[in-house]
Amino acid sequence: MNNRPPNHEHIDDQMVKMEVNLDDISGEWLGYVMDVLFDAGANDVFYTPIYMKKNRPGILLQLLCRKEAINQMKDILLKETTTLGIRYYPLTVHRMERKFTHVETKWGPVTVKQGISGDNVFQSSPEYEECRKIAKKYDVPLKKVYEEVWRNAEK
Amino acid sequence: MNNRPPNHEHIDDQMVKMEVNLDDISGEWLGYVMDVLFDAGANDVFYTPIYMKKNRPGILLQLLCRKEAINQMKDILLKETTTLGIRYYPLTVHRMERKFTHVETKWGPVTVKQGISGDNVFQSSPEYEECRKIAKKYDVPLKKVYEEVWRNAEK
Amino acid sequence: MNNRPPNHEHIDDQMVKMEVNLDDISGEWLGYVMDVLFDAGANDVFYTPIYMKKNRPGILLQLLCRKEAINQMKDILLKETTTLGIRYYPLTVHRMERKFTHVETKWGPVTVKQGISGDNVFQSSPEYEECRKIAKKYDVPLKKVYEEVWRNAEK
Amino acid sequence: MNNRPPNHEHIDDQMVKMEVNLDDISGEWLGYVMDVLFDAGANDVFYTPIYMKKNRPGILLQLLCRKEAINQMKDILLKETTTLGIRYYPLTVHRMERKFTHVETKWGPVTVKQGISGDNVFQSSPEYEECRKIAKKYDVPLKKVYEEVWRNAEK
Amino acid sequence: MNNRPPNHEHIDDQMVKMEVNLDDISGEWLGYVMDVLFDAGANDVFYTPIYMKKNRPGILLQLLCRKEAINQMKDILLKETTTLGIRYYPLTVHRMERKFTHVETKWGPVTVKQGISGDNVFQSSPEYEECRKIAKKYDVPLKKVYEEVWRNAEK
Amino acid sequence: MNNRPPNHEHIDDQMVKMEVNLDDISGEWLGYVMDVLFDAGANDVFYTPIYMKKNRPGILLQLLCRKEAINQMKDILLKETTTLGIRYYPLTVHRMERKFTHVETKWGPVTVKQGISGDNVFQSSPEYEECRKIAKKYDVPLKKVYEEVWRNAEK
Repeated sequence: MNNRPPNHEHIDDQMVKMEVNLDDISGEWLGYVMDVLFDAGANDVFYTPIYMKKNRPGILLQLLCRKEAINQMKDILLKETTTLGIRYYPLTVHRMERKFTHVETKWGPVTVKQGISGDNVFQSSPEYEECRKIAKKYDVPLKKVYEEVWRNAEK
Repeated sequence: MNNRPPNHEHIDDQMVKMEVNLDDISGEWLGYVMDVLFDAGANDVFYTPIYMKKNRPGILLQLLCRKEAINQMKDILLKETTTLGIRYYPLTVHRMERKFTHVETKWGPVTVKQGISGDNVFQSSPEYEECRKIAKKYDVPLKKVYEEVWRNAEK
Repeated sequence: MNNRPPNHEHIDDQMVKMEVNLDDISGEWLGYVMDVLFDAGANDVFYTPIYMKKNRPGILLQLLCRKEAINQMKDILLKETTTLGIRYYPLTVHRMERKFTHVETKWGPVTVKQGISGDNVFQSSPEYEECRKIAKKYDVPLKKVYEEVWRNAEK
Repeated sequence: MNNRPPNHEHIDDQMVKMEVNLDDISGEWLGYVMDVLFDAGANDVFYTPIYMKKNRPGILLQLLCRKEAINQMKDILLKETTTLGIRYYPLTVHRMERKFTHVETKWGPVTVKQGISGDNVFQSSPEYEECRKIAKKYDVPLKKVYEEVWRNAEK
Repeated sequence: MNNRPPNHEHIDDQMVKMEVNLDDISGEWLGYVMDVLFDAGANDVFYTPIYMKKNRPGILLQLLCRKEAINQMKDILLKETTTLGIRYYPLTVHRMERKFTHVETKWGPVTVKQGISGDNVFQSSPEYEECRKIAKKYDVPLKKVYEEVWRNAEK
Repeated sequence: MNNRPPNHEHIDDQMVKMEVNLDDISGEWLGYVMDVLFDAGANDVFYTPIYMKKNRPGILLQLLCRKEAINQMKDILLKETTTLGIRYYPLTVHRMERKFTHVETKWGPVTVKQGISGDNVFQSSPEYEECRKIAKKYDVPLKKVYEEVWRNAEK
């Protein structure tokens, strides 16, 4: 169903974006809905502030999921939001190969997610949750934890 | 052209989303354009604030319409906005079955739009315009009108 | 209470800005609240999308009013929104002298609001509601109405 | 220092709003900073998307705190964000009296926070965290939990 | 590959929209990325503020380009942003015919871009860069330059 | 007029924030206005998308300047925008001591702006314009330039 290019990149043509416009739901519920959708396996969920008719500040809910998840996501949206309709369209997703390495810091090792293209590491991201835990445990600014990781990563 | 699933749901594959990026039009005109597009039969119209080149705060105008309305909507956009181009792409829309009931309140009946799935009412929305008129006529907060409707709706 | 500078400018030091953060109210109600506040005499009302705790998309409601209107505005906010608190702070407002002239167009005269500073007209704005009515009545784009006014305004 | 009006309302004139403009920090860190500020006792923290120089999408961080907390909040902002300056201004806060009642639902009692003015209950909000727990525990939509609370609240 | 309608309009079906969600990049870098993408031939690039998981204010980067430019744009996004994946979908673009005329002003001629449909000029835009240079050179408000152009344009 | 705390911090109580709401100006002009205000000495200028009456997407322009610059900024706002009024309020600004150091990279030295508090460097920011020039000159991603600076900065 998917074709995999020779190396380091995966092309996925089985994804869709679903969208719902919402003008009769509170922010409180929307914070909850996002969690429910992620828990159910949505690849991504995000909100955009929009201007709707009758001077209404509304929210555009967008989510990315695989085609086979459309019905499950639709059920959640109908149950947990106030919409009576949803829309979606297919899209193609390119995902780069990811490799996980570890960088030593004075507070212990931190996982770094690397993006690989050919022999090239074009992207290095310290894992947020690990850095957050170190920041809390050692009472240091999160910023300092990231800086330490960046400094200790080999070139 | 459309296939209708056995019950309670309509799948419409004749819809498109049209989009225009605008950085040389005032908010005053945009408020007007939205009304014109709705009056002409757009299914929905909404604006998103965007960051455009040269430090310009712009607006992304998005509208939903049926395929056969593309040319009419395009004509309005060209006449009423400052764009020289529009873009669009098809999308699939699932619409749930709607039923209208009435809920008694101390100020008279209020229509409630229900979303139906199987034997289940998963969604109940008091009609805004009716609630607004009651709020104005009886000088009560709109909030109180909605609360009264919710309280009196049978379970 | 106010001091009026020699000409063309009025300094008002009796104004306040009131603010409310809202994360448990729908856009539908917010569209209504704005109208109620303007009808009650607010000098301006506007909404900003904000990011609140627990992943909630919220709205910052801001309104400008005179100090003596604080209690009236507060009452409306408590009744019509979901807040249990409001905040405000004083500000100074400079307002330029306004003069109204008329510009002839092929559809009749249109009022133009001018901003005056010394002998200088630094600002000319066609009145939106008049232009809107012409656009509707003569079935011309609003844009064309404004362009006609701008062209016919004397230099 | 504060004057307390006869009933149901508290006027607090010891509050400030602090603000920081940020264009060189990631959203990842900002999500963290909000939690740290709330944990340290900020009364509220919220973000607004802003357009900054050189085509930069930035964030305006705003927080409300008491005057005596200014230095503590400033320290956190300097440590955890990328700013080298903060600004603040005093504001007056009106807070309405709150009363907590309980509403019975089929899943047990839920706390409702009420806003009181004179003998009037002008505001009733089910406690979010309790509703969320019920929704998770009984696998019902959050919306249904709120609707049940509203329906069962006495008028 | 494209079909060209009889006059004044070009339908381009070789365009795509690419999208990336970003929550771990600063506004400073994003201002830079926009320039790089335009320089590399993107037809348009724009940012939308979005609400992402874990309370993160993020940015949705969208760009329009021709299908044959997908790989080039993808390379830039991988190198210059922090993403490990991109998505895209095809869209149809209608572009109206443009004609360039000149309008005389007291500061010299200014180019005006016109949108043409049949024999109709439905759109006239003074060229921003020329107006900006006049405003700077003659120390007049940009607004006055545009007003002069609009006034002197033939009807 | 200002009191300077013992070390590393400057408290400035001569600043104001000016604000203007704009619903009848294009993004094109707003991009220009920001540059003009910065050139005239504004300490900061930024825009927020707002929802105004009659369904208008508007912009809140905010600028920070010293009290003695109020009239100059006001003149620019009246000339270059469409407003007939401006508002402002005083605020207190804390600015941390800044020190500039240099970090060696394979492309030459880069200035790093440090925030100082006591003996502590709590903040280090590579100078954007220098990094940008290196990125362009050596055809490397801006991201790589920053990473190199961070890695080579002494702890």
